[in-house]
Amino acid sequence: MPTYERLKGFRDFYPPEMAVRREVTDTLESVARRYGFREIDTPRLEPAEMWTDKSGDDIVDELYAFEDHGGRHVTLSPELTPTVARMYAAKAQALSKPVKWVSTRPFWRYEAVQQGRFREFYQTNIDVFGSSEPTADAEVLATAADAMTELGLTGDDFEFRVSHRDILGSLLRSFDADVDVRAAIRAVDKSEKVDEAEYLDLLHDAGLGFDEARDFDDLLGVTDPADLDELTDFAPESDELAAAVDNLRAVLAAADDFGVGDYCDLSLRTARGLDYYTGAVFECFDSTGEVGRAVFGGGRYDDLIEAFGGQPTPAVGVAPGHATLGLLLERAGVAPDAAIETDYYVLRVGDTRDVAARVARDLRAAGNVVETDVAGRSFGAQLGYADSINAETVVIVGEQDLANGEVTVKDMATGDETTTPVEEFPGDRDRPTYDDFAP
Amino acid sequence: MPTYERLKGFRDFYPPEMAVRREVTDTLESVARRYGFREIDTPRLEPAEMWTDKSGDDIVDELYAFEDHGGRHVTLSPELTPTVARMYAAKAQALSKPVKWVSTRPFWRYEAVQQGRFREFYQTNIDVFGSSEPTADAEVLATAADAMTELGLTGDDFEFRVSHRDILGSLLRSFDADVDVRAAIRAVDKSEKVDEAEYLDLLHDAGLGFDEARDFDDLLGVTDPADLDELTDFAPESDELAAAVDNLRAVLAAADDFGVGDYCDLSLRTARGLDYYTGAVFECFDSTGEVGRAVFGGGRYDDLIEAFGGQPTPAVGVAPGHATLGLLLERAGVAPDAAIETDYYVLRVGDTRDVAARVARDLRAAGNVVETDVAGRSFGAQLGYADSINAETVVIVGEQDLANGEVTVKDMATGDETTTPVEEFPGDRDRPTYDDFAP
Repeated sequence: MPTYERLKGFRDFYPPEMAVRREVTDTLESVARRYGFREIDTPRLEPAEMWTDKSGDDIVDELYAFEDHGGRHVTLSPELTPTVARMYAAKAQALSKPVKWVSTRPFWRYEAVQQGRFREFYQTNIDVFGSSEPTADAEVLATAADAMTELGLTGDDFEFRVSHRDILGSLLRSFDADVDVRAAIRAVDKSEKVDEAEYLDLLHDAGLGFDEARDFDDLLGVTDPADLDELTDFAPESDELAAAVDNLRAVLAAADDFGVGDYCDLSLRTARGLDYYTGAVFECFDSTGEVGRAVFGGGRYDDLIEAFGGQPTPAVGVAPGHATLGLLLERAGVAPDAAIETDYYVLRVGDTRDVAARVARDLRAAGNVVETDVAGRSFGAQLGYADSINAETVVIVGEQDLANGEVTVKDMATGDETTTPVEEFPGDRDRPTYDDFAP
Repeated sequence: MPTYERLKGFRDFYPPEMAVRREVTDTLESVARRYGFREIDTPRLEPAEMWTDKSGDDIVDELYAFEDHGGRHVTLSPELTPTVARMYAAKAQALSKPVKWVSTRPFWRYEAVQQGRFREFYQTNIDVFGSSEPTADAEVLATAADAMTELGLTGDDFEFRVSHRDILGSLLRSFDADVDVRAAIRAVDKSEKVDEAEYLDLLHDAGLGFDEARDFDDLLGVTDPADLDELTDFAPESDELAAAVDNLRAVLAAADDFGVGDYCDLSLRTARGLDYYTGAVFECFDSTGEVGRAVFGGGRYDDLIEAFGGQPTPAVGVAPGHATLGLLLERAGVAPDAAIETDYYVLRVGDTRDVAARVARDLRAAGNVVETDVAGRSFGAQLGYADSINAETVVIVGEQDLANGEVTVKDMATGDETTTPVEEFPGDRDRPTYDDFAP
């Protein structure tokens, strides 16, 4: 007899784990919905060329790619962006701008499995397309921050470290050296994970002299937006830098107006690993540092829609990953309750199925979670099952009670029980409990 | 510049289509939840052996199967059952029985694309494990029927054609001939799709004489449960048949008690195509016949958990597919509304972002869907956008109004507008509209 095992890096969500994920998903989506993000959904499988055409991307080595029965090169999506770029390009004319989309779904990457990192992982992608205004960046920050607080986190639990790709890029370009800007930005992204010598080596490999690397890194130490003048003073000839500094200040000011400025810290050493970001970027961190890496991140990627065949379209977004977010919620002690909840168990004794079924139907019609016997069990076994599913109230429909025209209502927390006329139960009560009938 | 196309048989869900799918999904899941089904979720990728080990299954030819970077034979799941069987077997001891699970997710089969049939398709699976009682079958029928009526369908729109695999099997075994029962049941499953001669040929190929085939098919014409005696009279020596008839009657009687008997028609010529069913089976049909094939189906499959390595475990379930269900909802004129809905657009004029943001935050905190300008647009452009997202109310936060301490509240259906003190807006009103302030 064969037995099978789940693939490594994939998860089974039994009801307790699923209850947690459902609550996190519903909270993220509901906050995004209130901001006017509209839900979309997307194919799990896409032409592999959407990733392989862009050579040099680490993602390609991690693809679950294969040839389908029709000879197409296909892949499970490792990220959403190329797909929404494809969708946006396909209907750009008809869509009312700005386009604000939200979706939650799994993605797949064949990479090393570790705590909070799986080969099948869930993200909620929240994106604004068609606005280059700092208010769009700020709205994404505000949506993410509101979702965090709605999940029960406070400003003591998390911080958004906000940076700007064009500040990093224009600073790097202001040096006389021939700098590989992408490599240098990747070095900045690694600065917190490697020691200083290695970091400076990486900047040197990217084309900076060691003194320049030190100067550059010193400039990134600015944490007060007012001090960003130090950067423009350093490279006064760079209009690009001045514009980027203005833009970052405008994003932070809008985030302030939007009520989430307190969650945002200027942190130029935050760079984001992916090449495609173009403006403001940010990463969410555990303020205590216990969750040792970025919980999630986001930012502006104005060139990507065009790269995937669309008209030039500014875009900014954020993509909370549910696994790392779950680690932060646990660390902060606010992970959703995994316990199964049941409002009623309708217990049948003897030949009372029609009445018990009527009671269960009425309770369900009012929106309650109601179970009843579908296994032909004894009184005691039914009561034990009711307890195992955390039933709040048990309604006992017994032959003897029914002969008196009554049912018994039992509070499972206290064990108290009383009887009430079956004809009036539940009547027009939405959620009757023992207390409504207590003698 | 590369452009990419979606794979054939896959769908992009833009917000209007997604709103429809979301409403259908939420309704199915919410009805199941009220019946005490608990949500689970499952890997999209599984070891291919879970399907290929069972040779002879048509599904294998349709698998999206491949070898991963670790040399594992893996496949996108074409159905849920082997996965829940694996999950049930892995935790059978710890699970409180009966186990009642619900989940909605996509599955994949490489097959011909036609109306209502895609290569990536969504199903809500609803299953009871651990009870062989007819009440469990009836609860699955009741959950499915309640979901249909909750979606707006009536008894004039759909019917559940209920049959029983053991009645078909024991009848077939009651003939003297050496009958291939699986082949004969597959012939019954095709009876509505082929002409009579071909149907009788298929039964003949399965081992029945032509006279026997006619007798067998005549017996399947019974539509009143009371007339099931004709079957037991035909084969009085078959205890298996008598037990199966009793079981089917008990399922229908329980469905009656559960309030959904009116949706259930006895229909022995309904057989379900899949081999693994073992007891009562049913298919949902469009009563008008306009949707020409089964909308979805379900039934009892008591041997499958064991086949996937678990202890012998009775099981019964149903799996509404969202695409065919959508066809039925459209035919019946009750498809959910695809229009985007927005409660408020907060329109900014001049330097009023902080106040406008405060108003938007307060409205969102009360649960409303609220958009505001993130694209730096003019008054007219903002009003046009508000109209394009079907905003019910526009709150205009303008510099001049603010100088008087007021905002303007505009009803987008009538165009009526009035002003109200900004300090008191929205105040403690959850959803203020023009009517609340009309002069």
